[in-house]
Amino acid sequence: MPDFTLDTKETALLLIEYQNEFTTEGGKLYPAVKEVMEKTGMLENSSKLLEFCREKGVTIVHCSIGFEKGHNEISNMPYGILAGVKEGSAFEIGSTGHEICDAMKPKENELVVKGKTGLCAFQSTNLDFILRQNNMKNVVLGGFLTNCCIESTMRTAYEKGYKVYTLKDCVGATSLAAHEAAIEHNFGLFSVPTTSEEVKEALITVA
Amino acid sequence: MPDFTLDTKETALLLIEYQNEFTTEGGKLYPAVKEVMEKTGMLENSSKLLEFCREKGVTIVHCSIGFEKGHNEISNMPYGILAGVKEGSAFEIGSTGHEICDAMKPKENELVVKGKTGLCAFQSTNLDFILRQNNMKNVVLGGFLTNCCIESTMRTAYEKGYKVYTLKDCVGATSLAAHEAAIEHNFGLFSVPTTSEEVKEALITVA
Amino acid sequence: MPDFTLDTKETALLLIEYQNEFTTEGGKLYPAVKEVMEKTGMLENSSKLLEFCREKGVTIVHCSIGFEKGHNEISNMPYGILAGVKEGSAFEIGSTGHEICDAMKPKENELVVKGKTGLCAFQSTNLDFILRQNNMKNVVLGGFLTNCCIESTMRTAYEKGYKVYTLKDCVGATSLAAHEAAIEHNFGLFSVPTTSEEVKEALITVA
Amino acid sequence: MPDFTLDTKETALLLIEYQNEFTTEGGKLYPAVKEVMEKTGMLENSSKLLEFCREKGVTIVHCSIGFEKGHNEISNMPYGILAGVKEGSAFEIGSTGHEICDAMKPKENELVVKGKTGLCAFQSTNLDFILRQNNMKNVVLGGFLTNCCIESTMRTAYEKGYKVYTLKDCVGATSLAAHEAAIEHNFGLFSVPTTSEEVKEALITVA
Repeated sequence: MPDFTLDTKETALLLIEYQNEFTTEGGKLYPAVKEVMEKTGMLENSSKLLEFCREKGVTIVHCSIGFEKGHNEISNMPYGILAGVKEGSAFEIGSTGHEICDAMKPKENELVVKGKTGLCAFQSTNLDFILRQNNMKNVVLGGFLTNCCIESTMRTAYEKGYKVYTLKDCVGATSLAAHEAAIEHNFGLFSVPTTSEEVKEALITVA
Repeated sequence: MPDFTLDTKETALLLIEYQNEFTTEGGKLYPAVKEVMEKTGMLENSSKLLEFCREKGVTIVHCSIGFEKGHNEISNMPYGILAGVKEGSAFEIGSTGHEICDAMKPKENELVVKGKTGLCAFQSTNLDFILRQNNMKNVVLGGFLTNCCIESTMRTAYEKGYKVYTLKDCVGATSLAAHEAAIEHNFGLFSVPTTSEEVKEALITVA
Repeated sequence: MPDFTLDTKETALLLIEYQNEFTTEGGKLYPAVKEVMEKTGMLENSSKLLEFCREKGVTIVHCSIGFEKGHNEISNMPYGILAGVKEGSAFEIGSTGHEICDAMKPKENELVVKGKTGLCAFQSTNLDFILRQNNMKNVVLGGFLTNCCIESTMRTAYEKGYKVYTLKDCVGATSLAAHEAAIEHNFGLFSVPTTSEEVKEALITVA
Repeated sequence: MPDFTLDTKETALLLIEYQNEFTTEGGKLYPAVKEVMEKTGMLENSSKLLEFCREKGVTIVHCSIGFEKGHNEISNMPYGILAGVKEGSAFEIGSTGHEICDAMKPKENELVVKGKTGLCAFQSTNLDFILRQNNMKNVVLGGFLTNCCIESTMRTAYEKGYKVYTLKDCVGATSLAAHEAAIEHNFGLFSVPTTSEEVKEALITVA
């Protein structure tokens, strides 16, 4: 049993970049994350948790990354991880790769974050706005990449005063070493590292 | 002649909420802003400046506000200006009111800000991300409302270190008194108040 | 009687720039704000509210603006209101003008915001960090200037999802016209405009 | 020779938490970082780079973390890394541990960031304000901890559009494994990983 409880009315399940580009055969980055995905079963774990949270009435928040054709949102002299995103024309709005995969598709009335053209899910989006307006205190975090967008989002959520829970079995990266290093060295600094099973047990509804 | 110059390569024309909800007969907020719009000619002035800036190669940035059906991005117990937006179901994505009006329609490859569910164009969007990635130093500001989104955006842009230019003849509000008070008392604190004609004269292309 | 209540455990009284530079004979900006201060009695009203809030156990948050000698935090080519601050060497750390005035002096264990070199009390400070860590939901706002730092802070607090209360009788500006225009046209968009007397009546302690 | 150049007029050397608490015998966290510090020689490397940058006219920016007695800036129910900081009363303002160590002491007129009560040097401070006002484009990053404040600052600086350079030989952590994992897996995503020697060679003064 986990040593924490999560009030469903104050808890958001934040699902980051479950887009075909990552999750699905044919996606530009699928080959890069396939190994870790298979090893951890993160997509199946995430999908089951999503269903569970929907039944419990947890607030579901979907967050995709996307760029208009030409990727003009990114500098003409990019460096770091955005250079690869631009060069590879990844996550182009309107493409299949940009769409959220079938297993994690948003339902009507679920919250969909807009504006993500960077890595941290807070820096270029209305995520904080939505969470505050909906009185969320706890953020439960799954998706891609363990040591990139997930980790940046975890770090910022922590600084903004949310109680952050990171799902070790619902995240993936481009190498097992990067994935495991993030969890081992960094997740505990800025979150309560946990699993989808523990979160299911921790969710309670306070009258 | 204005006492400033604007390098086209470092200047963004930031166009805020030229959406049918405000600009066009049938828009929910058109009756509220109609008087000031007619008095200042802000839509025609803005449209002419937009054409001029396109020819000069100025970076054009469009910024709309929008909410999914149900306005769940906003609190269930809203107050202040967002209460009215939610109650009136204004700026609903997919509606005609949400669309940018014909006179100001974005062209392909122009930058379109995403995420605006608040008032300041920076707080819940990728505006700062886009401006920094594109090396913009100057922000020239027009749209709605003089004392609400325009003023909040001006204030934040100033704090973020941009050189801000506010277009007195390209902004509008729900009352002439509110419009004029913002320009008289506040625009000079956080920007260089100017006009579309002065901006046209100030734009230069540095080799 | 006000039509709202304020839970003392979730309410912060945010006191902005009650520094000698503004409040006290000899302060560089005292001549500019003297007229409005005398007209509204804002310093006496603020001081009485501060005492009341201390007794009730409201969280007190003090926020000063300050610059190191030389004002190197500000650009060498400043414009807008920061140009005047730098030219006049106002709010220099270590000077009497920088100190909070006797009537509003912080007590031990009260929270003191750090980093304010801009106008909005959130943009360059640890204010949001402190408020979130201390579980504050309501921000009650008094100080200087009605249409500058107070208004910028109100606007940002609103976007960040706080319930904002602005104290019409505890704020001041450099002209009565600017002061009154801000209250009339803008305070209601981003806050619940109120008075120190109403806040005193609204404060309750929930067990 | 490095494959980049750094214009001294647009480059900030950002020095994070070279405080006695970390760097000096008797500091509360000195035992934790001593091993990595000795292995990499980060303090000596940093000190030499600081002297070099001063001579070249690079903008020096010092950034400490600090809390008032009682650590009331941090929640009463802290978790993650801030829990340890509060429990250990680390970085208390006024204590020797809070002071920047002799080897890295700021000189008059150097910029000193204020407000840091969190981990990322941007989130609760005037760092971005200062960098923008001073027209900085490049941020060269050294200090503590490789995988905590350094990494969070690197990530945010990248999102904000700065060109970030991380100094592999001028950073330290509480374990060699955490230090090396951050450099290996994450530094390249959000920065140009480099060394103090390369930065010295890359610094040029453009007329």
